[in-house]
Amino acid sequence: MLAINANRLNARLQAFAAIGGTTKGGVNRQALTEGDRRARRLLAELATARGFRVFQDPIANLFVWRNGRDETLPPLLIGSHLDSQPAGGRFDGALGTLSAFEVLESLEDAGTITDRSVVVVVWTNEEGCRFSPGCMGSMAFSEGAIPGLWQDKNATDGARFAEELSLTIQSLPEAAMVPLGFPVHAYLEVHIEQGPSLEAAGIPIGVVKGIQGTRWLDVTIKGQTAHAGTTGLSWRRDPLRALTSAFSNLYNTVMPGDPEARFTIGRISARPGSVNAIPEEVHCTIDIRHPDPGRLDEIEMFVRSQIGEEADTHGCRVQILCAFDMPACGFSEPLREVISHAASVCKVQSMPMLSGAFHDALFVNRIAPAGMIFVPCRDGLSHNEDEYVEQEHIVMGCEVLAQATLLAANCMDPFPDCTALHTIEPTF
Amino acid sequence: MLAINANRLNARLQAFAAIGGTTKGGVNRQALTEGDRRARRLLAELATARGFRVFQDPIANLFVWRNGRDETLPPLLIGSHLDSQPAGGRFDGALGTLSAFEVLESLEDAGTITDRSVVVVVWTNEEGCRFSPGCMGSMAFSEGAIPGLWQDKNATDGARFAEELSLTIQSLPEAAMVPLGFPVHAYLEVHIEQGPSLEAAGIPIGVVKGIQGTRWLDVTIKGQTAHAGTTGLSWRRDPLRALTSAFSNLYNTVMPGDPEARFTIGRISARPGSVNAIPEEVHCTIDIRHPDPGRLDEIEMFVRSQIGEEADTHGCRVQILCAFDMPACGFSEPLREVISHAASVCKVQSMPMLSGAFHDALFVNRIAPAGMIFVPCRDGLSHNEDEYVEQEHIVMGCEVLAQATLLAANCMDPFPDCTALHTIEPTF
Repeated sequence: MLAINANRLNARLQAFAAIGGTTKGGVNRQALTEGDRRARRLLAELATARGFRVFQDPIANLFVWRNGRDETLPPLLIGSHLDSQPAGGRFDGALGTLSAFEVLESLEDAGTITDRSVVVVVWTNEEGCRFSPGCMGSMAFSEGAIPGLWQDKNATDGARFAEELSLTIQSLPEAAMVPLGFPVHAYLEVHIEQGPSLEAAGIPIGVVKGIQGTRWLDVTIKGQTAHAGTTGLSWRRDPLRALTSAFSNLYNTVMPGDPEARFTIGRISARPGSVNAIPEEVHCTIDIRHPDPGRLDEIEMFVRSQIGEEADTHGCRVQILCAFDMPACGFSEPLREVISHAASVCKVQSMPMLSGAFHDALFVNRIAPAGMIFVPCRDGLSHNEDEYVEQEHIVMGCEVLAQATLLAANCMDPFPDCTALHTIEPTF
Repeated sequence: MLAINANRLNARLQAFAAIGGTTKGGVNRQALTEGDRRARRLLAELATARGFRVFQDPIANLFVWRNGRDETLPPLLIGSHLDSQPAGGRFDGALGTLSAFEVLESLEDAGTITDRSVVVVVWTNEEGCRFSPGCMGSMAFSEGAIPGLWQDKNATDGARFAEELSLTIQSLPEAAMVPLGFPVHAYLEVHIEQGPSLEAAGIPIGVVKGIQGTRWLDVTIKGQTAHAGTTGLSWRRDPLRALTSAFSNLYNTVMPGDPEARFTIGRISARPGSVNAIPEEVHCTIDIRHPDPGRLDEIEMFVRSQIGEEADTHGCRVQILCAFDMPACGFSEPLREVISHAASVCKVQSMPMLSGAFHDALFVNRIAPAGMIFVPCRDGLSHNEDEYVEQEHIVMGCEVLAQATLLAANCMDPFPDCTALHTIEPTF
């Protein structure tokens, strides 16, 4: 069993939380900002001081390399991201990155030579809040190319993506360039759950079975604006009434009828938005999720038919666009067994669970078996300066990663049948 | 019977529509702007050319005075407003003002001397879109004072109310000052219906019984934002779900259950407004109307209880503020008979009806009997550059006003019991 240094891990978490730290105890360290570059620099300095080699690739994914016995074998990747939400917490991303670095240092402390090289990875722009989409680093890595469209992207603060990416790469001249998407044996990531299930179950470790599919719908429904006082019911073509009626039914059926379904309306607005006028047009977004691709399709069809019917009833026209479609992903079963076994070795309880959010592991899983280790966060709170992880859960997550790393990095054969596992099992 | 000059009325409507005319055929002549001043100046010049006297009061209400036989008697006021919405039509306000001026010119043409003086009034800022509230001129006139709070108001374009009012008064130096709220015998106003009832009934004249009561509620409902993907149903405190449920019930009961009730949600927004987050807070406005004050109270209580119950069910807190409360008003019955009789004299069909919108007549009615003559507008459309009134309806409205003016201005006794009529009959 590989022992980790909990004090060192805590000190690292504190040091990184100070970079972009907010007065409320959170972190604002958005992707490819000066804060992001300072965090990368600190990690590179710590790595170099321990004798690890540092690399980066054309999307600025950062790699800290500890050689294994056989350098011709594809390495085991472990890590997460260092960028944050604008009012983010100190654990989302940083916990996984620094736990991975702690594992690397613990291996070094113990003088343990793994069969395969172990590489800590820091994926670029997981959050996607400054430059959309999120998971740019892992997505480009899995595709072996940077989509051309990204180069012209502008940040919410006006910065240009191509320029910020270039500055970020230049800020670590000591990190030699490696190609995008080199061969990888497997990928392991520790992350906070960002939901309440582990806390509610009183179980410290979640072994992630997969990530549910997500689909975002953009709904625009058009009726006719008219005077709130002069227009009787039979003359009204009220798009908000039509939507409300559909929503009420959807809220009462989609999630209550299927515990694995998610249905969320996050954004809604009415035009002209006058207190005394029936709206002309209402716009809203719908986020639907399900681990089973067939069910996700069914839910989308149900949403479309409900809104369509109510639009007809109320004399409105509706347009529903699919703005985003992320298929469900199932993680490698053998790698899940590695994590479960690692948890038993550490004598901590674990449970299988789905991830409601997407993560870099979803993209890495397209080219190599990926696995995720979840730890509880207080009240399920994340993307929030109050995000908090109990000390014991920080340590347990890192310990499980350490044992899983030993197991996976000493596994000489590729994990079997990993590509077939990219589609999720219907029994989820 | 007093004959009017339809060609002259049309020419006047065209001339005034050109002041602030938009490329789409509408009018942008907001209150106390240079356009508003040009329209006042044109009317004052036309009045002076016909030998009428011109006055204004401290809120810039403009009066065109034609002497009657007995100048000691309170005059009959006829008129409307000349200000418009930013993307308004050419008839809202202007039709009533120019019809009244046409009646004055027709009296002059015919050499008819009425017992009482007949005075055309142009009320200041009926629309209330540049400076809130609307109906400032008639409100101040009915109260005999300008509320102190108005002086510090800023326009949506940054202009100061006190300054714009002063410039407007100065722009007509020939108009002598009269005190706010001088004694008035009665008030008559022609206006477009701004709703579809007359057009649907195929009847050209509406005799307005009164104006329904209006109440605006500001609703803020607070739940808890959380991740759309990670948060299961039992952990959700979704304020939009709570509101949707309440709205669905309200839409299905308030108006369908009472043909005189109006229930409109014109404005809605969710914070943080992120596609993949359950809203933390939803804000919306509710406009409810009813001619019966008791029913209006009942509807408000029902709205509050429905939203309150759903907020409880979904673990949300709700705050509902009354942002505006305009009691219902019933117009003078004898004056309504004068208008109905005038319509019969003109051989045009008329019908009694309620006004869904408020008008200057509502405020004048607090100090003197007021009456309104509605004409149809195409598709009920108003506050819109496409606002349109058929030629025959323009003429009929003005003819009925002319006959009603003759009847009311030659009525030596005050209209009976006018103050008791300010509350609406429950049989409406």
